[in-house]
Amino acid sequence: MNIFLKDLDLSYIWHPCTQMYDHKENIPLIPIKRAEGMVLYDFEDRGYLDCISSWWVNLFGHCNAYINQKLKEQVESLEHIIFAGFTHKPIIDLSKRLMDILDSKFSKCFYADNGSSAVEIALKMAFHANMLKKEKKTKFLCLHNAYHGETMGALSVGDLGIYKEVYEPILLQSLRVKAPYGNDYEESLEDLERLLKSHKGEIAAFILEPLIQCAGNMNIYDKAFVKEATKLVQSYGIYVIFDEIAVGFGRSGSMFAYQQCGVVPDFLCLSKGITGGYLPLSVVVTHQEIYNLFYAPYYENKAFLHSHSYTGNALACACANAVLDIFEQNNILESNKILSKFIWEKMQVLKTFACVKNLRYCGMVFAFDLVGFEGVRKGLEVFNAGLKKGLLLRPLGNTIYLMPPYIITQEQVVYIIKSLQEILGEF
Amino acid sequence: MNIFLKDLDLSYIWHPCTQMYDHKENIPLIPIKRAEGMVLYDFEDRGYLDCISSWWVNLFGHCNAYINQKLKEQVESLEHIIFAGFTHKPIIDLSKRLMDILDSKFSKCFYADNGSSAVEIALKMAFHANMLKKEKKTKFLCLHNAYHGETMGALSVGDLGIYKEVYEPILLQSLRVKAPYGNDYEESLEDLERLLKSHKGEIAAFILEPLIQCAGNMNIYDKAFVKEATKLVQSYGIYVIFDEIAVGFGRSGSMFAYQQCGVVPDFLCLSKGITGGYLPLSVVVTHQEIYNLFYAPYYENKAFLHSHSYTGNALACACANAVLDIFEQNNILESNKILSKFIWEKMQVLKTFACVKNLRYCGMVFAFDLVGFEGVRKGLEVFNAGLKKGLLLRPLGNTIYLMPPYIITQEQVVYIIKSLQEILGEF
Repeated sequence: MNIFLKDLDLSYIWHPCTQMYDHKENIPLIPIKRAEGMVLYDFEDRGYLDCISSWWVNLFGHCNAYINQKLKEQVESLEHIIFAGFTHKPIIDLSKRLMDILDSKFSKCFYADNGSSAVEIALKMAFHANMLKKEKKTKFLCLHNAYHGETMGALSVGDLGIYKEVYEPILLQSLRVKAPYGNDYEESLEDLERLLKSHKGEIAAFILEPLIQCAGNMNIYDKAFVKEATKLVQSYGIYVIFDEIAVGFGRSGSMFAYQQCGVVPDFLCLSKGITGGYLPLSVVVTHQEIYNLFYAPYYENKAFLHSHSYTGNALACACANAVLDIFEQNNILESNKILSKFIWEKMQVLKTFACVKNLRYCGMVFAFDLVGFEGVRKGLEVFNAGLKKGLLLRPLGNTIYLMPPYIITQEQVVYIIKSLQEILGEF
Repeated sequence: MNIFLKDLDLSYIWHPCTQMYDHKENIPLIPIKRAEGMVLYDFEDRGYLDCISSWWVNLFGHCNAYINQKLKEQVESLEHIIFAGFTHKPIIDLSKRLMDILDSKFSKCFYADNGSSAVEIALKMAFHANMLKKEKKTKFLCLHNAYHGETMGALSVGDLGIYKEVYEPILLQSLRVKAPYGNDYEESLEDLERLLKSHKGEIAAFILEPLIQCAGNMNIYDKAFVKEATKLVQSYGIYVIFDEIAVGFGRSGSMFAYQQCGVVPDFLCLSKGITGGYLPLSVVVTHQEIYNLFYAPYYENKAFLHSHSYTGNALACACANAVLDIFEQNNILESNKILSKFIWEKMQVLKTFACVKNLRYCGMVFAFDLVGFEGVRKGLEVFNAGLKKGLLLRPLGNTIYLMPPYIITQEQVVYIIKSLQEILGEF
């Protein structure tokens, strides 16, 4: 069944973020029959521990009984309706609950389907808000090593060459600030100040991933940079966008990363974990000052006329509400602290390997770099070796990371670390 | 309950494609409790016939028993997994089934979450394919009056001022061809030829909505333009993208609009109806020649590294497979022909109103323009009057249209037309 399905897949499907040639020999393509909790099962019933939460989206395990139940209940009454002129309780509940846990400065939720679209909305809204203030600012400021998605606007404020380089001729040119790296951020602040001074009249907004540049090889950096940079940018009257698509919903250790940093952005982009890994949903949260700029009689042509057909999807909102239920009922942020500490302690043993450098963590993100293998796809070897041991890892180049669902057990952590030791021991 | 929910909504939510000020007095915001078949029910159990398929997505009614069943079955085994390196049966089935009903020239499906993302993928893929052929072509060619979505790349190839004008300074500049209008397309072909001759070395792709420019006030135009324009563009070695996000899955009368036109594009973008109005899902279909350009050993850096976290969502695929089941088992394309003819015949009575002009249809899309009310939001009056009669219409400016789910009954059609007569009679 596995082989038959694999061949069918390769006949008809072009996978995302994949050199399909790799499936010829370097990387197996694995058809999954079912999933439960931490584990994906193939058609031979081999299990794979989902150490990366299926691209950082799953929070409480696959086919979670509670989320399943809530989704099935929702489908009985309302699956989806147009979200202009009409509304529904699941999205009102979700919006109110988000506002209850977010800073009081925030007041409005603008929904979309995926993270890239959320970033596009934040960029357009920031640009448009300036235009409504009669300020034509056509540049966005972003960090080196940033990733914000792959639609053309989102890609314009990213900085990862493999995703972006070829498209440069059709992208908006952004201003890029030296990225902070770990605790090293002084030069980044200087670079930021220099750019602000020389381009302040042109910059519509500054976008960053607070605390962790995830796709940028899990660069975990100092919260002081987030704080200082945000204050500095805002002091110039420039909007700040936090892309918490990957780090929101507990991943950074707090419910949202900005909460650790002592500053509040003008726009907050959320997605991925919002539905617990079930369905595409994203939201841009912003404050009343922005909203009011657009709020005017129709004939003034100030409306923000962005939409996606499935905006406000009731099924996705039902999953998101279930996720918030689980956070509340099980005090997840507290239990994650214990879990995070446990994983971090167990990982220390990896330091004994000479090839392991820069072991680091933040909340429920753990990473290290494999060094001494320049130009070699060592991460790919780890991926393939992981599969043989029943682990789904998906290294970023030669950076190995764990970003597990919050339901991972201590036994599973021990098994993963032991397996990594064995894999690294073979190098 | 309605009023309480409405106030909560307006406190926390910024709706898509809406001047929120309109909800102060011009437009009621209606909380919907449940939906079934053609009808949305509010909290006072008032019903609204969904005459526009909730932004053109719903095909077989709300809370369709069969799709509900298939979705609930899927959630028991696999809700979502990473779609790089892994795959699953629902998406393999869906891809094979799409290939079986599409032209044999097509061979590969590349998935995303929403229509805008599909357009972005097609644009990037077309640009990138040219780059891989060592041809740096940085312009896209599109039609006047076009709409392709609202992320920045998609917006760049659109032409509707209300969605786009303010953002021009941050968008890619596209080349625009005079749009065909009804049977009038000769000048459009001439304009196209002129642009091709003068810019042929710069154009990466030509994108169009075949047969109907939907957001462009339901401009139903001659299939001969689609055919001639596509042949002409392809004769210049330029790729053609068909955006069938709104017109695919039976809406145009055939399963896909291109099938009526005697040509096959290089990229076909599908979304909206693909899941029957249940969940966000989109796909870009393309052919082997494109795929092969990107297929190479990893180190050649030719991969198309686009992704969205929820790409290939198993729940959405289960809905899409259920939709294809219904098409097959109920011979929908044939029954729609009868239904389409019935609606069209019943609509003829509207011609008796002096303000009704350009009554038109294509498949399951029906439209007319209200004339003599320049500068007046007459469409908004129709929307509000429709609500009072239990109709969800959402005119495009002063263009009134019906784009109902395919399960609409003759009785419902008769009621809608009678209601429209009453509404127009008041003008």
